[in-house]
Amino acid sequence: MSVYTPVSQSDLAAWLRNYSVGALEKLEPIKAGIENTNYFVTTTQGRYVLTLFERLPAAELPFYLNLMAHLARHGIPCPAPIADLADAYLGTLNGKPAALVTRLPGRSIEAPGEAECRELGLLLARLHLAGRSYPAYLENPRGPRWWRMAARDLQPFLDAVKRRQLEAELEFQAQRRFADLPRGPVHADLFRDNALFERGRLSGVIDFYFAGVDCLLYDVAVCANDWCLVDPAADRRLDAARTRAFLAAYHALRPFAPAEREAWPVLLRAAALRFWLSRLHDLHLPRPGELVHAHDPEHFRHVLERRVAEPAPWLEAA
Amino acid sequence: MSVYTPVSQSDLAAWLRNYSVGALEKLEPIKAGIENTNYFVTTTQGRYVLTLFERLPAAELPFYLNLMAHLARHGIPCPAPIADLADAYLGTLNGKPAALVTRLPGRSIEAPGEAECRELGLLLARLHLAGRSYPAYLENPRGPRWWRMAARDLQPFLDAVKRRQLEAELEFQAQRRFADLPRGPVHADLFRDNALFERGRLSGVIDFYFAGVDCLLYDVAVCANDWCLVDPAADRRLDAARTRAFLAAYHALRPFAPAEREAWPVLLRAAALRFWLSRLHDLHLPRPGELVHAHDPEHFRHVLERRVAEPAPWLEAA
Repeated sequence: MSVYTPVSQSDLAAWLRNYSVGALEKLEPIKAGIENTNYFVTTTQGRYVLTLFERLPAAELPFYLNLMAHLARHGIPCPAPIADLADAYLGTLNGKPAALVTRLPGRSIEAPGEAECRELGLLLARLHLAGRSYPAYLENPRGPRWWRMAARDLQPFLDAVKRRQLEAELEFQAQRRFADLPRGPVHADLFRDNALFERGRLSGVIDFYFAGVDCLLYDVAVCANDWCLVDPAADRRLDAARTRAFLAAYHALRPFAPAEREAWPVLLRAAALRFWLSRLHDLHLPRPGELVHAHDPEHFRHVLERRVAEPAPWLEAA
Repeated sequence: MSVYTPVSQSDLAAWLRNYSVGALEKLEPIKAGIENTNYFVTTTQGRYVLTLFERLPAAELPFYLNLMAHLARHGIPCPAPIADLADAYLGTLNGKPAALVTRLPGRSIEAPGEAECRELGLLLARLHLAGRSYPAYLENPRGPRWWRMAARDLQPFLDAVKRRQLEAELEFQAQRRFADLPRGPVHADLFRDNALFERGRLSGVIDFYFAGVDCLLYDVAVCANDWCLVDPAADRRLDAARTRAFLAAYHALRPFAPAEREAWPVLLRAAALRFWLSRLHDLHLPRPGELVHAHDPEHFRHVLERRVAEPAPWLEAA
């Protein structure tokens, strides 16, 4: 389980005196997640998630917390950080940077249909529109610069075929820069398990700790590569009906620019590359003390292969 | 009913395109309230209240909206203003300043018991603690300056007995200034109908449009004069058990200072005076076009008389 830093009832009860959220009623460790220590917290006022940041650079935390606060006050159903009595979102608990955020209702869905993909498209477009007025900047921490660094570190662990495949894709991506695509804050990790549904509605988007500023279309591609596969275990093509539902819903709120249509097949490949690399990295170069319930890197290598072999014909959809 | 400025479905659907709250599903006028035009708004995302400000000075609106936003992000269950795509809380709709805020669950309670008075005490203390870091300033718009102005305007409408009673109280209050009482943003109108309960918990504090900066104890006195009466229709003494529950709960989170104990009987009188005056004003000097379901001013004259005759012995309670 992913509790690196234990927090006792009495630690937390004392810490919560810096807040206006009422008295502590319940504290439960959350087992999912490998980056941070997380607890569900119930007080007389409401339900929250407590996060102790174990690895994220302290300088980047305000970007994430202020982004969530910004989106929440625009009506996006994302965790809203709670400010303490000194009016700060970030505190220190048991020696770690820590934050309290609202807990959202709902559950993630493993096999979304067209209706859920439509919900996702609408929400992602709203998130991007609301994010445009967010003033802070953080480069996508898993962008092209990181790809090159990770690829170099991973060289010794790859066979010749994979090495060539990786080099070819990095080369392909390097030759295609789209300087004029709409940019802004992106979630960059909006997989099915980071979206909560309640009564058919998308009730929450969680885990903003890979967010950064990048092409908005990159976020769309990350989602499509996870939500719209024909069969994640066997057939990594994009399901036409779900992809169309997702893109059309997004397009209705934030119409795609012509340059985005052109860039789409490239960004689908970029989004597959990023997760192939990070999964390879988690597998071969785990950080000290990291608990590896590492995902299989092969999945995203297959996704990438499909996107290379068969560029996605989404343009007719939107 | 209190819709001064009608808003149609299509007016609102168009206006909501400036927001990230999803598509409009339902729009219902709210009949309560005499200051503003209010609608319940349901979108694909959630439930909101739309307010068109009919009379409040435009320059004061940011104080109220930013205060609600400040308290909401500290975990206080108050309406949270929604920012539009230009990142503003205040917009214009059908020619009026307008804002969209979250709609809170729950219902107000007419006859609170000790448990509800305890909930109120805890919430009010949390609100005051969270408000301390709020940087904006607006003098309580119904403070001593307003009392004197209102009393002057009301002279012609009062008989000799009431005129003397009013003058005596203004004189009494003028001689007692408590410069060193803890101050901060106060709700200043937290009557039973501005608090919502759900499953025994205080789930919402609404209507911040009389808020201002004043003695925190003044807010406590306003509440006591409404929530803790033995019988609002017949016996305006403070019920000992409910008053004690209210004050003890508040005191547990924000302990009363010695100066506050001394000032208590005076502020109970001040809080009664303020509502006696405003109800007289609503009755005799209604603003043009105002819909008078005016409350009876006599009620608060009786409250004031009780507080004068029998200063409240709360100090043993806390």
